[in-house]
Amino acid sequence: MTPEREQKLLSILQRRQPDLTLIAEQVHKPRNISALIRNCDAAGIAEVQVVRPREGYHNYRGTALGSDRWVDTALHDTLDSAIEAVRARGMRVYAAHFSDQAVPYREVDYTCPCAIIMGAEKEGISPRAAELADEHIIIPMQGVVSSLNVSTAAGIILAEAIDQRLKAGLYAQSRMPSDWIAR
Amino acid sequence: MTPEREQKLLSILQRRQPDLTLIAEQVHKPRNISALIRNCDAAGIAEVQVVRPREGYHNYRGTALGSDRWVDTALHDTLDSAIEAVRARGMRVYAAHFSDQAVPYREVDYTCPCAIIMGAEKEGISPRAAELADEHIIIPMQGVVSSLNVSTAAGIILAEAIDQRLKAGLYAQSRMPSDWIAR
Ligand SMILES: C[S@@+](CC[C@H](N)C(=O)[O-])C[C@H]1O[C@@H](n2cnc3c(N)ncnc32)[C@H](O)[C@@H]1O
Ligand SMILES: C[S@@+](CC[C@H](N)C(=O)[O-])C[C@H]1O[C@@H](n2cnc3c(N)ncnc32)[C@H](O)[C@@H]1O
Repeated sequence: MTPEREQKLLSILQRRQPDLTLIAEQVHKPRNISALIRNCDAAGIAEVQVVRPREGYHNYRGTALGSDRWVDTALHDTLDSAIEAVRARGMRVYAAHFSDQAVPYREVDYTCPCAIIMGAEKEGISPRAAELADEHIIIPMQGVVSSLNVSTAAGIILAEAIDQRLKAGLYAQSRMPSDWIAR
Repeated sequence: MTPEREQKLLSILQRRQPDLTLIAEQVHKPRNISALIRNCDAAGIAEVQVVRPREGYHNYRGTALGSDRWVDTALHDTLDSAIEAVRARGMRVYAAHFSDQAVPYREVDYTCPCAIIMGAEKEGISPRAAELADEHIIIPMQGVVSSLNVSTAAGIILAEAIDQRLKAGLYAQSRMPSDWIAR
């Protein structure tokens, strides 16, 4: 790696967001998990929470242009343990979920410490996750098909989070613990 | 189909946007084309423009939850013919393209008649497309990996178009030619 490239990489990693994460609940298609991780990288997420899918979890190193090298994965056996982990960091929890209480995704605040739960390909968000979340958020759709692909939905919500966090100056500072980069 | 379902379907199709489209330039992975079409459906796009990829074009009917039943595909042999087609409908042309002139995607107007060009998986937007476009637009990214998946990028840009068009009341009226639904 050239010194310039290394410098650029360091500066990107220093601007990782310790207070933003995504929880993948039972998302099981490897290409969807891989696409989610690529989106997390783009939003500066340092660690993604993965609830181990019943179908098994496979780490597809090498996919999504190597983004999994730059985003850590915390594997949880249950949804509850994933939620506990993010609550311990003082995070609000949003569930991307079609429900009667859901509010449009641009109406919530992503500059506070927060985690976004994304649901499984077929079943979506579980009743338990819907109950534990502070808020349900929805992306308005104008089409015949009733849902978006899970990684597209995550990309859209994270694009809003990026926008809000850029405006709040949260990517302009180094906010990770000082020993984090050295790992 | 139940009468209720048919009524709902009709009302969605009546609110299709005759003045919004997407041009897929040499996007060749079937699952990406299929995902693009699903995103077009969600944005109420009636017809997507596909520039026939060198690798060949396969219509994957049945994928993306049947969204290709609800979005027409206009196949073009060249980029120029796709651009001509949208210009003939009075559309502005935006290219989703990393260039020095690119402006953040939320700063342009999607309520005017417009087409958005999305680039190929590896090569991105061609020099010809970059030249013919009125404006280059970019989604700000804060990560190590240098681009988003093409269908995620399209989903993010179309989510902004939906937001602007909802606010402008463009999904509240029937705007398609009266003989269109009857087909
Ligand atoms: C393919 S969808 C699951 C669809 C499932 N049949 C349902 O009704 O929940 C997978 C996940 O993507 C997210 N998602 C997809 N479209 C969304 C939208 N328009 N708004 C919010 N989240 C969405 C949700 O987290 C959802 O659980
Ligand atoms: C995987 S990218 C192509 C990357 C290619 N190496 C390049 O540099 O253009 C495929 C297409 O997705 C769109 N795209 C991906 N990320 C984008 C972003 N951050 N802003 C705008 N468009 C993007 C562009 O249309 C791009 O041509």
